[in-house]
Amino acid sequence: MMHSMVRTEHRADLLCSAIDKVGSPLCVGIDPVVSKLPPELAPLSALEGFKAFTEGVIAAVAGIAAAVKFQSACFERYGAEGVKLLGILRSQAADAGLVVILDAKRGDIGITAEHYAASAIVDGPCDWVTVNPYLGWDSILPFLEAGLGVFCLVRTSNPSGDVIQKQKLTDGRTVAESIADLLAKKGEQFVGETGWSNLGVVVGATKPQEAISLRSRMPHQIFLMPGIGVQGGQAKDVVPCFADGHGALIPASRSVIYPTPTSDWQTDIANAATKLASALQVGANE
Amino acid sequence: MMHSMVRTEHRADLLCSAIDKVGSPLCVGIDPVVSKLPPELAPLSALEGFKAFTEGVIAAVAGIAAAVKFQSACFERYGAEGVKLLGILRSQAADAGLVVILDAKRGDIGITAEHYAASAIVDGPCDWVTVNPYLGWDSILPFLEAGLGVFCLVRTSNPSGDVIQKQKLTDGRTVAESIADLLAKKGEQFVGETGWSNLGVVVGATKPQEAISLRSRMPHQIFLMPGIGVQGGQAKDVVPCFADGHGALIPASRSVIYPTPTSDWQTDIANAATKLASALQVGANE
Repeated sequence: MMHSMVRTEHRADLLCSAIDKVGSPLCVGIDPVVSKLPPELAPLSALEGFKAFTEGVIAAVAGIAAAVKFQSACFERYGAEGVKLLGILRSQAADAGLVVILDAKRGDIGITAEHYAASAIVDGPCDWVTVNPYLGWDSILPFLEAGLGVFCLVRTSNPSGDVIQKQKLTDGRTVAESIADLLAKKGEQFVGETGWSNLGVVVGATKPQEAISLRSRMPHQIFLMPGIGVQGGQAKDVVPCFADGHGALIPASRSVIYPTPTSDWQTDIANAATKLASALQVGANE
Repeated sequence: MMHSMVRTEHRADLLCSAIDKVGSPLCVGIDPVVSKLPPELAPLSALEGFKAFTEGVIAAVAGIAAAVKFQSACFERYGAEGVKLLGILRSQAADAGLVVILDAKRGDIGITAEHYAASAIVDGPCDWVTVNPYLGWDSILPFLEAGLGVFCLVRTSNPSGDVIQKQKLTDGRTVAESIADLLAKKGEQFVGETGWSNLGVVVGATKPQEAISLRSRMPHQIFLMPGIGVQGGQAKDVVPCFADGHGALIPASRSVIYPTPTSDWQTDIANAATKLASALQVGANE
């Protein structure tokens, strides 16, 4: 397991290379919940079911998706045993050639952020983490200094985020835009050979006009764009955020890992991933 | 352990009662790091050391402090084993009569927030959690619905938080003030018999003038006020945030759990807690 934990390539370059390899910016979100697991796994305990399911998802999407994004909360709700399993599954995803994103949205300052950065790689590998900007730059930098790629929340796909993110500042910008400008500037020092920074951002695919505007503010930030599929975003909405097939990573969870059953569940998942990867490939090449 | 996990009292009422019992709004922050543990514990492994140390802190401050605040990151950096220990120690703190705060600053939406709320009580009890408001109300409500008290970040004690929190909106408020107004309104439905809400807030003690202004915006919110001690805040700075001895909880970590050694470490910690509790008692009664 240790060999996977010490990957030292520039994280944005690594992600671009993974996208090139599969020919699509698809990221499969792994958000296991007991009630949605395939019926065949029902006899298992929750965590045994998560393990069998996630192993099946990894096998089904490796070579189709560039990355997987683990929803930490789904595992944390089962306490220490869930956290342990999450580390094991991250390891398996990395071994299958997938870039590993830990969606934990941590946000704390200084030494505490250092602890969180350490926690992202202690039980298994991790390439990128999601973080929250509300405490400012000193809650973000420690993750970058630990060698991780960072997707910092800027403009989220949920409606209730408007209450902060869409507020207008006296200088004419929204709060989200002001954070975008800060991150664009701070992220310059973390740009790799591909021109993309290890400091990326979360920008919802459900707000395509805002995404285009944010792209112009953040030319070197990779966009992690949730909201495709169940939340209503469409593949065409994310097209303007790409440059030469890079610059955006499109996570899809429910629409890929819980497809309408037609065959065995792993085949269904592979088919759903292939279909979405293909739709996004068009986007990436435009 | 289970008996502690199903405490159903109103969380703000429970906290007020704990403050009354010890006569002080002191909350001891438990942020263990190996390099700062007492020398006697050096032969132990990190987590064995954390266990012995935290058990010593709990024994030393029970009856002096109203609450303990566990810094989740300090334990998470040791992976699943650290998370497991954190649950055990929360249980011990609750059994010692201390209100248990889990400082994890989670922030995610809807079902994911529900998972995080579940995670706060799975391996041990928890009365209050800290949360981040950047994703809006649907990232906060699930914690309250799970029966937990919530301290939502509004104005933090670290300088770099200014970059968002202090930004001026076109309506004349700062971002922090606009969140304060939202929380004051949303928190009304969670007010208990004491007049305080289960929806509390984090307001740094390092910004006393802003704290006074925020107090007037949030009459029913209990303030969790970090920043006393090492960060430069003083006991007198938090006085205006109290009403009848309630309404604020003052966490202190380094200044209490890592005091200058003069006697055995548990006695030193008890003395540091007693001294600070006494200073804050004056504050509470003014």
